[in-house]
Amino acid sequence: MKHEYLLEQMKSRMPEKRFIHTRGVAETAIQLAELYGEDPEKAEIAGILHDSVKYAEQEWLRSIIVSQNMNPVLLDFNHELWHAPVGSYVAKTEFQIADEDILKAIEFHTTGRAGMSKLEKIIYVSDMIEPSRKFSGVEPLREKAKIDLEDAMTSCIKHSISFLIEKKQPVFPDSFHCYNDLIQQRGKVKE
Amino acid sequence: MKHEYLLEQMKSRMPEKRFIHTRGVAETAIQLAELYGEDPEKAEIAGILHDSVKYAEQEWLRSIIVSQNMNPVLLDFNHELWHAPVGSYVAKTEFQIADEDILKAIEFHTTGRAGMSKLEKIIYVSDMIEPSRKFSGVEPLREKAKIDLEDAMTSCIKHSISFLIEKKQPVFPDSFHCYNDLIQQRGKVKE
Repeated sequence: MKHEYLLEQMKSRMPEKRFIHTRGVAETAIQLAELYGEDPEKAEIAGILHDSVKYAEQEWLRSIIVSQNMNPVLLDFNHELWHAPVGSYVAKTEFQIADEDILKAIEFHTTGRAGMSKLEKIIYVSDMIEPSRKFSGVEPLREKAKIDLEDAMTSCIKHSISFLIEKKQPVFPDSFHCYNDLIQQRGKVKE
Repeated sequence: MKHEYLLEQMKSRMPEKRFIHTRGVAETAIQLAELYGEDPEKAEIAGILHDSVKYAEQEWLRSIIVSQNMNPVLLDFNHELWHAPVGSYVAKTEFQIADEDILKAIEFHTTGRAGMSKLEKIIYVSDMIEPSRKFSGVEPLREKAKIDLEDAMTSCIKHSISFLIEKKQPVFPDSFHCYNDLIQQRGKVKE
């Protein structure tokens, strides 16, 4: 069974706590997919694979970003961001995932971006609200995710950016564009 | 006397309260210029002129942005932003200000930008902390401005972005780039 194989692979590549998080993201993503009319199978695969290279060597991550001509601006930002696009590359090449939407959901699960698909939003939100997450403010995000995916995504990216700004950390441009895109789409819906 | 003429012009173009703010910005900018080794004359002119078209008709502001080939992204954002670049244009064309640094200080006084000059930072900060400003959190900004211009500018842009995000308002990309630039410069200084 493919999912079992992928889960075994993830278990061997990360500490127990992160593996619990991984399963939590996959399970939350399935629930949100069922709630919002997305394919639960795709949501599960993206959830399982989203952190596959979270514990890879920093220099190896850098080498993949360079060799695969990924956005070079990534290298000017915190290496914590690198596992997302490289994880998407590994999903495609090592785990033979061909579905572009799954690959994008993995690629943008840390930063978000303008024009996210429903699956991308489900993975981004699931990553923040899965049951083992404990940060202050997670409960209202969980409640929103049950009611309105757009609203939950907006609150999640708002939370992420505010958290970084509060800590005087740089914010990757895709996250800003993601925030503005969601806010401006809301404005258009209301008009 | 040129400054008196400019002040008279401003007085005739804005309500009393905004004129008090204008004089406050000019006076604060002179003080910061003296403190940080910038030209107080340039700081004063930029301070006087920064809000010259704050009360101009929205459609006229739009027409100038279009006819002068300014950044078209401005038109997708709140019209409150438009008076800054158009004010710069008016300073150049109507009030014959040729100094590029003064013009840039007016142009970016609302959004900030990556790579701001000392004068641009002085005007941005002065606009937020001049004596008639009353918002919650202004006092620590005033204290910082007496000690370190970079630190004050970082705190001011952080405050502006946080305020907009809290209100779920879009944030103009230049403000994000300004924030990241200041944060990343700080990182380089500390390294």
